[in-house]
Amino acid sequence: MPIAKVHRISAGAPDDVSGVEAAIAAGTIDPAGIIAIFGKTEGNGCVNDFSRGFAVRALADMLRGHVGAAAQDVCLVMSGGTEGGMAPHWLVLERGEDGEGMTSGPALAIGRAHTAPLPPEHLGRMGQVEQVAEAVQRAMADAGITRPEDVHFVQVKCPLLTAARVAEAQGRGASVATGDTLKSMGLSRGASALGIGLALGEIGLEQLSDAVIGTDLSLWSGRASCSSGIELMGHEVVVLGMSEGWSGPLGIAHAVMKDAIDIAPVAGALASLGVTLPSATQDEADSLIVLAKAEASRSGTIRGRRHIMLDDSDISSTRHARGFVAGALAGLVGHTEIYVSGGAEHQGPDGGGPVAVIATR
Amino acid sequence: MPIAKVHRISAGAPDDVSGVEAAIAAGTIDPAGIIAIFGKTEGNGCVNDFSRGFAVRALADMLRGHVGAAAQDVCLVMSGGTEGGMAPHWLVLERGEDGEGMTSGPALAIGRAHTAPLPPEHLGRMGQVEQVAEAVQRAMADAGITRPEDVHFVQVKCPLLTAARVAEAQGRGASVATGDTLKSMGLSRGASALGIGLALGEIGLEQLSDAVIGTDLSLWSGRASCSSGIELMGHEVVVLGMSEGWSGPLGIAHAVMKDAIDIAPVAGALASLGVTLPSATQDEADSLIVLAKAEASRSGTIRGRRHIMLDDSDISSTRHARGFVAGALAGLVGHTEIYVSGGAEHQGPDGGGPVAVIATR
Amino acid sequence: MPIAKVHRISAGAPDDVSGVEAAIAAGTIDPAGIIAIFGKTEGNGCVNDFSRGFAVRALADMLRGHVGAAAQDVCLVMSGGTEGGMAPHWLVLERGEDGEGMTSGPALAIGRAHTAPLPPEHLGRMGQVEQVAEAVQRAMADAGITRPEDVHFVQVKCPLLTAARVAEAQGRGASVATGDTLKSMGLSRGASALGIGLALGEIGLEQLSDAVIGTDLSLWSGRASCSSGIELMGHEVVVLGMSEGWSGPLGIAHAVMKDAIDIAPVAGALASLGVTLPSATQDEADSLIVLAKAEASRSGTIRGRRHIMLDDSDISSTRHARGFVAGALAGLVGHTEIYVSGGAEHQGPDGGGPVAVIATR
Amino acid sequence: MPIAKVHRISAGAPDDVSGVEAAIAAGTIDPAGIIAIFGKTEGNGCVNDFSRGFAVRALADMLRGHVGAAAQDVCLVMSGGTEGGMAPHWLVLERGEDGEGMTSGPALAIGRAHTAPLPPEHLGRMGQVEQVAEAVQRAMADAGITRPEDVHFVQVKCPLLTAARVAEAQGRGASVATGDTLKSMGLSRGASALGIGLALGEIGLEQLSDAVIGTDLSLWSGRASCSSGIELMGHEVVVLGMSEGWSGPLGIAHAVMKDAIDIAPVAGALASLGVTLPSATQDEADSLIVLAKAEASRSGTIRGRRHIMLDDSDISSTRHARGFVAGALAGLVGHTEIYVSGGAEHQGPDGGGPVAVIATR
Repeated sequence: MPIAKVHRISAGAPDDVSGVEAAIAAGTIDPAGIIAIFGKTEGNGCVNDFSRGFAVRALADMLRGHVGAAAQDVCLVMSGGTEGGMAPHWLVLERGEDGEGMTSGPALAIGRAHTAPLPPEHLGRMGQVEQVAEAVQRAMADAGITRPEDVHFVQVKCPLLTAARVAEAQGRGASVATGDTLKSMGLSRGASALGIGLALGEIGLEQLSDAVIGTDLSLWSGRASCSSGIELMGHEVVVLGMSEGWSGPLGIAHAVMKDAIDIAPVAGALASLGVTLPSATQDEADSLIVLAKAEASRSGTIRGRRHIMLDDSDISSTRHARGFVAGALAGLVGHTEIYVSGGAEHQGPDGGGPVAVIATR
Repeated sequence: MPIAKVHRISAGAPDDVSGVEAAIAAGTIDPAGIIAIFGKTEGNGCVNDFSRGFAVRALADMLRGHVGAAAQDVCLVMSGGTEGGMAPHWLVLERGEDGEGMTSGPALAIGRAHTAPLPPEHLGRMGQVEQVAEAVQRAMADAGITRPEDVHFVQVKCPLLTAARVAEAQGRGASVATGDTLKSMGLSRGASALGIGLALGEIGLEQLSDAVIGTDLSLWSGRASCSSGIELMGHEVVVLGMSEGWSGPLGIAHAVMKDAIDIAPVAGALASLGVTLPSATQDEADSLIVLAKAEASRSGTIRGRRHIMLDDSDISSTRHARGFVAGALAGLVGHTEIYVSGGAEHQGPDGGGPVAVIATR
Repeated sequence: MPIAKVHRISAGAPDDVSGVEAAIAAGTIDPAGIIAIFGKTEGNGCVNDFSRGFAVRALADMLRGHVGAAAQDVCLVMSGGTEGGMAPHWLVLERGEDGEGMTSGPALAIGRAHTAPLPPEHLGRMGQVEQVAEAVQRAMADAGITRPEDVHFVQVKCPLLTAARVAEAQGRGASVATGDTLKSMGLSRGASALGIGLALGEIGLEQLSDAVIGTDLSLWSGRASCSSGIELMGHEVVVLGMSEGWSGPLGIAHAVMKDAIDIAPVAGALASLGVTLPSATQDEADSLIVLAKAEASRSGTIRGRRHIMLDDSDISSTRHARGFVAGALAGLVGHTEIYVSGGAEHQGPDGGGPVAVIATR
Repeated sequence: MPIAKVHRISAGAPDDVSGVEAAIAAGTIDPAGIIAIFGKTEGNGCVNDFSRGFAVRALADMLRGHVGAAAQDVCLVMSGGTEGGMAPHWLVLERGEDGEGMTSGPALAIGRAHTAPLPPEHLGRMGQVEQVAEAVQRAMADAGITRPEDVHFVQVKCPLLTAARVAEAQGRGASVATGDTLKSMGLSRGASALGIGLALGEIGLEQLSDAVIGTDLSLWSGRASCSSGIELMGHEVVVLGMSEGWSGPLGIAHAVMKDAIDIAPVAGALASLGVTLPSATQDEADSLIVLAKAEASRSGTIRGRRHIMLDDSDISSTRHARGFVAGALAGLVGHTEIYVSGGAEHQGPDGGGPVAVIATR
């Protein structure tokens, strides 16, 4: 019976994989079981954030040293930006097989799927929505999760358009959703999030069309976390949920923050896993794993009060939002090694976002 | 019998005093009673933050229109930097005289003092510490507060060194603590905070010397909030506390955050004023007033986890810290119009800081 | 016979008008003759640059003290951003009347015009182009310039859209060019520049339509400098050129840089005024006045080499471009008190821009 | 007879070594002859610039693939920061052996030396000065240069202090020059520059002591370029000069800019190599290689005019200075693929810096 393990390991630099190496050396992590590694790296999280690529290179080199060519199956999802007090770290998601009889009832389950390359002309359009939705279903199957309501977090790494990719499509007579590379990142995240929402039944197919992608903010998934990257043409999908087919002490739940300071639902999700806040000891606090999305509300306000995140030409609004939401969540859970990622198109309501929590029950 | 009123008014821009004007026009504020105006303005809060001077100019022009030359007695303390979701706003502190019989027992009291110009050679040294300590005692007397433990917040606006001021002192054969203008800001804040601590009995005179200022972080006041500015040579001191001689519904309490996410003491301070969190309604949440100091810990960690605030050459650590701590506090109290100020030398422990809360009892 | 005077005065801060005051006190400047003041202020030059408004407030207060209500006729055009080594300064443009017989032949001439408020639905469209073109013609007449080829620099301060202005237009059933406030700044600058080009015969009316504004970069004026601001609804237009009707030692010429390092045409324009570079003395170098526009080329390259200005999420491309072009021009002319302004839509070719030079002949 | 080759190759990203690979594949570069690779990478050039480490990793991986363990002998010196229009690129310095008879008279010569690890207590002190001076002499010997006046550029990569290194020294009872990691970078660069000046006879040993390092700005080398990095404990020294023992078409000269816009000496250095500016064709311009240091003058002025580089809390002064000086130099030479590096302690006078130029004669 599979058992899901989540190893949270501090990183001293974007290429510091020594903690992961140490855990492998100590036998705590079996490299052959690694399904995915999520990283919070300390770049600006925007266009010229080289900490992500640097981290991926270091992680891939390390994995190849242990598992050879199988390293390419591991989903490496780097989220740049550790503003405020966020601590750079890795989340190593491992599937073990020694979980027999450890727990009764459902436990944390992990599944993964890759998609074929997405034709550039489908990016940010229904073609991408549908491709992602299909992959989420495969990842659910891989995790042994049958009911959409048992899924609590879906991480998708999705492609973006480059000048070359646009040219290739146009050379075939195809049109693309945008010629703006930066804009294509948001469209790709948004279409992927809608694909997740479609797969999980949060959004109906009849509500979706090319026209709503990136524009109708009322359509969103409460369990989606999407990031786009230049290094792939298809999608990598990681599903986290609860399954009767898995064992072990870990459970997962999710919440949707309606705005940047809406922490009560997160406390509720933790309570559903049996966690009472504040934690009695720092060790208990430290054991909590939090994954969240953050963004500046387009309305320009939070509960009716003005924010300046969209007007600051010195600091990107995504940097403001990550640091601020990280403060709210770290204050709640009592530690700073949390995963808050920016760019939340169709991922939660305007200015809010999905949060997943993992805890030992 | 005096009554303290605290008007929190949103600002649409650094020079937007329309909300204050409207309150005066409506009779809500009597301009003759204004003791001080604190402002959170939306600049970078660092050296080249012109939003502070712009705000002071707009406020001073407005006050002169209402009270003439008496405007210069009003302490105008601008704190730059509304990172994350913090909302730019004014806190207008007013002393009314219509409070007879409104409450029994102590109520929020406000006092103010100015000092003579500080000779540049005393800045960042014991001469400044002692001058501030003496002024705090006068401001306490002005507020009708006799016991140091009844003081919950002391805001000091203190001077800095300029090249011209250094030259003037050196021309007289005097030496200065530093020739570095930026460094003088921190030394001035630190010496002022130690002066507050001395006046309030938090620190003994025997513990103090020129050598500890800016270096011995174990010495701090839990009620000090200091900011330095180029526009004055002396000090402006505003004391907030509880006094039997004042009436009205407002009360004040304080707490010391031991690090950037240590919100439990703040909840405790609010509880001491009868406030239960989370607030039952958004209106109740909105009524809470929070003043805090924030800084990046020099240790480079928060509860043992690394932060990158001191390594980021694109965003000043003070900007990171304000946004992050504001997130933690806004998540706690449920609104974003809070006053979090940076630069906390000798104001609370390394990486933490004092917080004052004002609420209607 | 009118004589144009251009006073370049250093500014120690955005609100430092002491140099202008001193020149008025010394009789060097007659405040009644001030037509316009251009300022390079030291903010970020982007959305939240409060140094511009702070400067305008200080200048307007000063002018009112000297000329009363006539102060409102003075065009105050602030350009934020003194990146690299650029020195913050004012350019006070004065029309004197004591120029009889000082020179033969044409001399620098200054003209000014204001327009009626622009209906929001015309912003960024042909209505704005035509309104600006008409105002340029009036400003030319005011300067006594009849031939378009005698105009060397046109500064336009133009409006932008705010949420309120958009709503007002839509309430009347009118549509606006964009609902995005920031985008409206670029559209307003672009339409104004096309209006200048139309008035000066650089662009034919048949080439213009709503559709080309902001999109067809092949259409541009080589003498336009436009900046948008929230504080006005109409336009302020200042024309600088050569006129037989003016006297005095000053002359003006212009050049178009085809890219960010194309300084040869600027040297040519100076040569046309009799200036040989490098200047023999620093005083001679200091006497040269330079006004330029700068921007990052959308092509992503300069002479075939990649630039990173459009990919840097920490520093706005306008800040990169101003500092870099200022370096190229300051290296050429030998001093750093030059006026380089960003945001060059339809002002010169992609990545390049117009430059005007003023020198004593 | 050795021949020096300098290959300037554009980089599309910090880890983009494809251009170097292509040149090796085409036989243009013999990987066994690579002495050093200098890189301008597109990070912020400050503490958290990961583009440097990312580049080093990519270059080292590439070199290992070609020359195996010998890759570690190649000096990889990355300078972060391509502000303004600077183009990210590599300078591959190669020593060929096919130069017999190609030229008469001296030609560009390249030499290299490594030092032993520097004990942390010597960093920023005379121990470092002397170690670097000795290594410069070895590198000169390696280049076959006997006279100091034939050296035109010395690049030193030097270590910095970390908390661990400080602790190690203190554990042995040794004291260090500073406990501040960031400050140690400047001290290390400064001591290295003084070591270069000592070796080249620009500074006398009697002028040097621990006390002058980092403080007496009147002591400087006009041929030094130093950068500190965490990845080494000793020094890597690359000397470029002219030697009768080398052949080939390339020559090198140097100049000292006395301030940020002092380009005339650079034109003079190029003239000494037979280069007339402006170049007749873009190809000729493109062939010029420029290496320079840039910094904001501590005086706060350039030729008497104020700069704001040291007051800007949003953009580091090193970023301002690089972009501005790059503009001045690119305007002069006519292309943007130039190497301007920041942090010029004891490298040229305050606000100025050394510049080396390499050209085909």
